[in-house]
Amino acid sequence: MLNVIKIGGNILDNEDALSSFLSAFSQLDGKKILVHGGGKIATEIGHKLGIEPNYVNGRRVTDADTLRLVTMVYAGLINKNIVAQLQSLNCNALGLTGADGNAITAKRRFVEDVDYGFVGDVIAVNGLLLKQLLDAGITPVLVPITHDANGGLLNTNADTIAQEVAKAMSQYVDVSLIYGFEKDGVLKDANDDSSIIPVIEVNDFDRLVADGVISGGMIPKLQNACSAIRAGVKQVIIGNALQLNNIVNGEKGTVIK
Amino acid sequence: MLNVIKIGGNILDNEDALSSFLSAFSQLDGKKILVHGGGKIATEIGHKLGIEPNYVNGRRVTDADTLRLVTMVYAGLINKNIVAQLQSLNCNALGLTGADGNAITAKRRFVEDVDYGFVGDVIAVNGLLLKQLLDAGITPVLVPITHDANGGLLNTNADTIAQEVAKAMSQYVDVSLIYGFEKDGVLKDANDDSSIIPVIEVNDFDRLVADGVISGGMIPKLQNACSAIRAGVKQVIIGNALQLNNIVNGEKGTVIK
Repeated sequence: MLNVIKIGGNILDNEDALSSFLSAFSQLDGKKILVHGGGKIATEIGHKLGIEPNYVNGRRVTDADTLRLVTMVYAGLINKNIVAQLQSLNCNALGLTGADGNAITAKRRFVEDVDYGFVGDVIAVNGLLLKQLLDAGITPVLVPITHDANGGLLNTNADTIAQEVAKAMSQYVDVSLIYGFEKDGVLKDANDDSSIIPVIEVNDFDRLVADGVISGGMIPKLQNACSAIRAGVKQVIIGNALQLNNIVNGEKGTVIK
Repeated sequence: MLNVIKIGGNILDNEDALSSFLSAFSQLDGKKILVHGGGKIATEIGHKLGIEPNYVNGRRVTDADTLRLVTMVYAGLINKNIVAQLQSLNCNALGLTGADGNAITAKRRFVEDVDYGFVGDVIAVNGLLLKQLLDAGITPVLVPITHDANGGLLNTNADTIAQEVAKAMSQYVDVSLIYGFEKDGVLKDANDDSSIIPVIEVNDFDRLVADGVISGGMIPKLQNACSAIRAGVKQVIIGNALQLNNIVNGEKGTVIK
């Protein structure tokens, strides 16, 4: 089983949490791919550089300065520090944007009413490259920046990168797609952190939404998970990245299958 | 023949020069590795972030903030834009720091009278990784940042990275090490840009220094070139990176052999 694991700001923004996660990640048996987004550090450095978050019609857009910022911070600062830490933990990590080895190509998003700027939707994942690296004992560490094959970089959602990579790798191997999350799993009751739903069957999803068991922001997240399963991913797990071992083996978190 | 080509600020600081160089680089036949340093952009971004060049006893030192700066700018901004441009030119580039795939390990430099900060001297180049990438049709694009195998990144001289990579690859293949330079080659007369010395034989080097034909800052550069040749590199070429085809085939620049 190949584990494709995505972590977000709640891990990246906390040095101790990141160290603890990387230690558990490095000890995971078998092949694995890490996908990391940014975090507060990008906003902080952007602020110092006079690059402030830019919104159009309530949507965050990636202007040219913001693209430069995320390229520096995600692909440079964050990625290389994660890779170096993993190397010290005997995990042979190698950082990649979508441009590196033509790993992930994307198309700039054009929407009539909103120009999102340098934002890309994934066209293709170079699964063969990732397979070759994994077969050589290397652990890819992916940055959510893609390229348009015309020399341009594009900012791409990290959840989407993880999902597309998981789908692409499913043609070679069984894939478990793991979303690190600030909660311990999908909650039945948003106000009760212990009300974790242990398993969601893809075929039950519509009924669970109709019954109000799943609601709000979890609906699109779980729709994406269901779409990954239908595309061949064996299971999607949503859970706390600080409980990595327990969520990988299905003891904690929510398993969608 | 594997070409290991190092470019510096005179190319990186000029968008047109960089595009022109990358176009010629992408069209070079055979296997190749690119090594790039930083440029003025790192100083400019550092200035905005309040990170100013730091000197101790007249020597530039890499403090923690400077290391973060070069990691962002070299490994993020510059490297990923070069890689994306090469991809658009049908050159399957892949960016690497020394941490990625454990490509280059280094040891932090400790000198009694000066603490250079996070500066590393190369211990080992993972030639097997570079060979595997080259054999897979990939062109490594190396950033002069190494790692200490204990989770730390280290700033390392780009000329040295190119030299150590060229030496390491010489165990697998004939290597030509090419230093892009602001002049068209090694000059007999520093005031006459046309006084290029076309060939320097390693065995003649000491005599040329004694005779005053080679002097000043060229001496350490050429000593390094001679040391590379003695370590198995077939030839070292010093020339103008904007005349890439002509220097690769020996028509321009200075060939040390």
